[in-house]
Amino acid sequence: MIAEIVSVGTELLMGQIVDSNSAYISARLPEVGYRVYFRQTVGDNLERLTQTLKLALSRADVVITIGGLGPTMDDLTREGIASALDEPLILDHDLQAELQEKFRQRGYPMVESILRQAYRPACARPLPNPNGTAPGLIAEKGDKAVIALPGPPAELIPMFNDHVLPYLRERAGGEPGVIVSRILRVCGMGESLVEDRIKDLMQGANPTVAPYAKTGEVHLRVTASAPSTEQAQAMIADIERQIRERLGNAIYGVDDQTLEGAVMELLWARGATVAVAESCTGGLIGHRLTEVPGSSKALIGGVVAYSNEVKMRLLNVPEETLREYGAVSEPTARAMAEGIRQLMGADFGIGTTGIAGPTGGTPEKPVGLVYIAVASPSGTRVREHRFLGRRSEIKWRASQAALVMLREELL
Amino acid sequence: MIAEIVSVGTELLMGQIVDSNSAYISARLPEVGYRVYFRQTVGDNLERLTQTLKLALSRADVVITIGGLGPTMDDLTREGIASALDEPLILDHDLQAELQEKFRQRGYPMVESILRQAYRPACARPLPNPNGTAPGLIAEKGDKAVIALPGPPAELIPMFNDHVLPYLRERAGGEPGVIVSRILRVCGMGESLVEDRIKDLMQGANPTVAPYAKTGEVHLRVTASAPSTEQAQAMIADIERQIRERLGNAIYGVDDQTLEGAVMELLWARGATVAVAESCTGGLIGHRLTEVPGSSKALIGGVVAYSNEVKMRLLNVPEETLREYGAVSEPTARAMAEGIRQLMGADFGIGTTGIAGPTGGTPEKPVGLVYIAVASPSGTRVREHRFLGRRSEIKWRASQAALVMLREELL
Repeated sequence: MIAEIVSVGTELLMGQIVDSNSAYISARLPEVGYRVYFRQTVGDNLERLTQTLKLALSRADVVITIGGLGPTMDDLTREGIASALDEPLILDHDLQAELQEKFRQRGYPMVESILRQAYRPACARPLPNPNGTAPGLIAEKGDKAVIALPGPPAELIPMFNDHVLPYLRERAGGEPGVIVSRILRVCGMGESLVEDRIKDLMQGANPTVAPYAKTGEVHLRVTASAPSTEQAQAMIADIERQIRERLGNAIYGVDDQTLEGAVMELLWARGATVAVAESCTGGLIGHRLTEVPGSSKALIGGVVAYSNEVKMRLLNVPEETLREYGAVSEPTARAMAEGIRQLMGADFGIGTTGIAGPTGGTPEKPVGLVYIAVASPSGTRVREHRFLGRRSEIKWRASQAALVMLREELL
Repeated sequence: MIAEIVSVGTELLMGQIVDSNSAYISARLPEVGYRVYFRQTVGDNLERLTQTLKLALSRADVVITIGGLGPTMDDLTREGIASALDEPLILDHDLQAELQEKFRQRGYPMVESILRQAYRPACARPLPNPNGTAPGLIAEKGDKAVIALPGPPAELIPMFNDHVLPYLRERAGGEPGVIVSRILRVCGMGESLVEDRIKDLMQGANPTVAPYAKTGEVHLRVTASAPSTEQAQAMIADIERQIRERLGNAIYGVDDQTLEGAVMELLWARGATVAVAESCTGGLIGHRLTEVPGSSKALIGGVVAYSNEVKMRLLNVPEETLREYGAVSEPTARAMAEGIRQLMGADFGIGTTGIAGPTGGTPEKPVGLVYIAVASPSGTRVREHRFLGRRSEIKWRASQAALVMLREELL
């Protein structure tokens, strides 16, 4: 089965928003047996929208539109689908009643224009939208279908998962294959080393194994196609086992799991606590750890020690260390990690110090030089890094390296 | 003049990457007098790529392709352009020599496949790529042109700015209009209030004024079309003056300036220093402030005070305050801001405490309740907020509100 995605909105063509919705839908469609050969983006113009939909219908089994379902005169997706399918646009009285009820419940005045959202192509049925006012649509005609989804991701994603994926899976029922993907997330190992270890596994046609380099980590997408989800999952499990044999602990998580989430889980499992002393990362490690719900169980706190004064007074970094080796040095990172561990009474202490740039570098201590220390009950380890990139990348890579080191200690 | 963008790459159709390049180019094209009516995305398949380019050439003056210029067999944009324009693909000996020289300089072995990048449609001329190996292309035939850009943003953006924008401007020379945009960034004021104040200005056809709600701020895009850039800029300056009269200090910056950058500039201008005590924001405010190059001149440091113990011991929050009012309370936020100001010897102290969720809320203190305090030489102010959204949104909105409050103090 072939699907085509049509994103609707002049704000997309003006570059005011980045179309992450179409990437999301593209990534999910293979799971239910659909391939995508084309995507199109068109503005809020009925003639061009109709032309775009007709082209998509000429070459795909299912066309999925994103956006243009709002209440304003610019929202033309309903009209465009009706026109491309040569169907009349009719007022759906049930939808009208639902919209009126939604507004009554929220105590909002019912604006006349909202009723535009109660219209649909005669052949279409509405999809409920618990997170907004715009209903989605599934319009079937002949052997083609057009599915219309609202643009806001908080409305689109639940509607796509709850209604569209099951519909598509059923519609593709006669087809032999489903495609299932799983992402293995690798940290502390560069892309070329990862590839080198699993070169032979990357040759396979089914499942396929494809690496993607992210800032400071590598993702391996394993994709299997099989007659059933269960069979595809079994195929993935088999190759995952082989990859884990080669990469071991470097795989920190799967799918959407973050490195900070994986580290938190290790801390919880050991009943351990952590505290962070951040110079060049400026609070980023604390920020990342506190993105994890429940992080207060393991994170006691931190100090952003931007000035030498703070490093000495709060973290007990000796003045001689700063004078002799400088703020960006192995001994300073070590003293910071040990100092925060003691100050906060934590099991683990992290210290970061470096030159994030763009200025402040010297030939001996260039931009990107970062020292990261982890103090633990069994001692303190420090690593020197030379990161490339801009200021925010260097900060991110340093936070990543710190989490990797803490994870190593915890394993 | 009409331009159409064609993004090339199966990884886009698989949803593995989000196409931010096409948004970037879309946003810049109006500046040199081009409108975009359609964008297309196609995979690494020569037949479909050729079909897509032919469609784009049938309805646009200039077609801009993104990606597919690499050295592998999957990189087919050169072939696709040659095929769509019905031109032979030829080996460019100068390009070949340049590529060989690039590899020699870097000390890399010259891989045979790299030479694929030395081919071009006969009618095309190469665009230099100082940031990578893939040259760009401008292919002119009849009254149409195809411009090919490499996919990595670090290569695409400089090539687009240095070579493509000037080319397009010149090409559009006969046309009367250029379009210039300027973004006014507004903080501390909701979208509806902003719209209410400038309703009449939003009615204008030229310049247009369009609001965009971002998390915790509002952006106003002012767009003018005029015979020359100077005239467009004068029109924008005139309406900007009127908007500033209505919104006053709520406009914190223009175009790419960030709120943390604007706050830093105010701190620098006053020679003032700041320190942050973060509970619910977990380091995010420190992280944001240290994203600004040169922030060490004004940021002394911070404390991430996740536990009550840290709030008491480092920030001198009285135990009675925590017992009587709780950690998430007006008096605790006040004590945190005053405590960090004193601890760090800073001119300004920020304190944040709240419930970021998803758990930990109660009927009296629900998820999203956040207190933010700013201590200054003239006293301490505290504000209560009730933010909506998920954990990371609540954290972001709290950091935004804290920067807004500090900015108010500084003005």
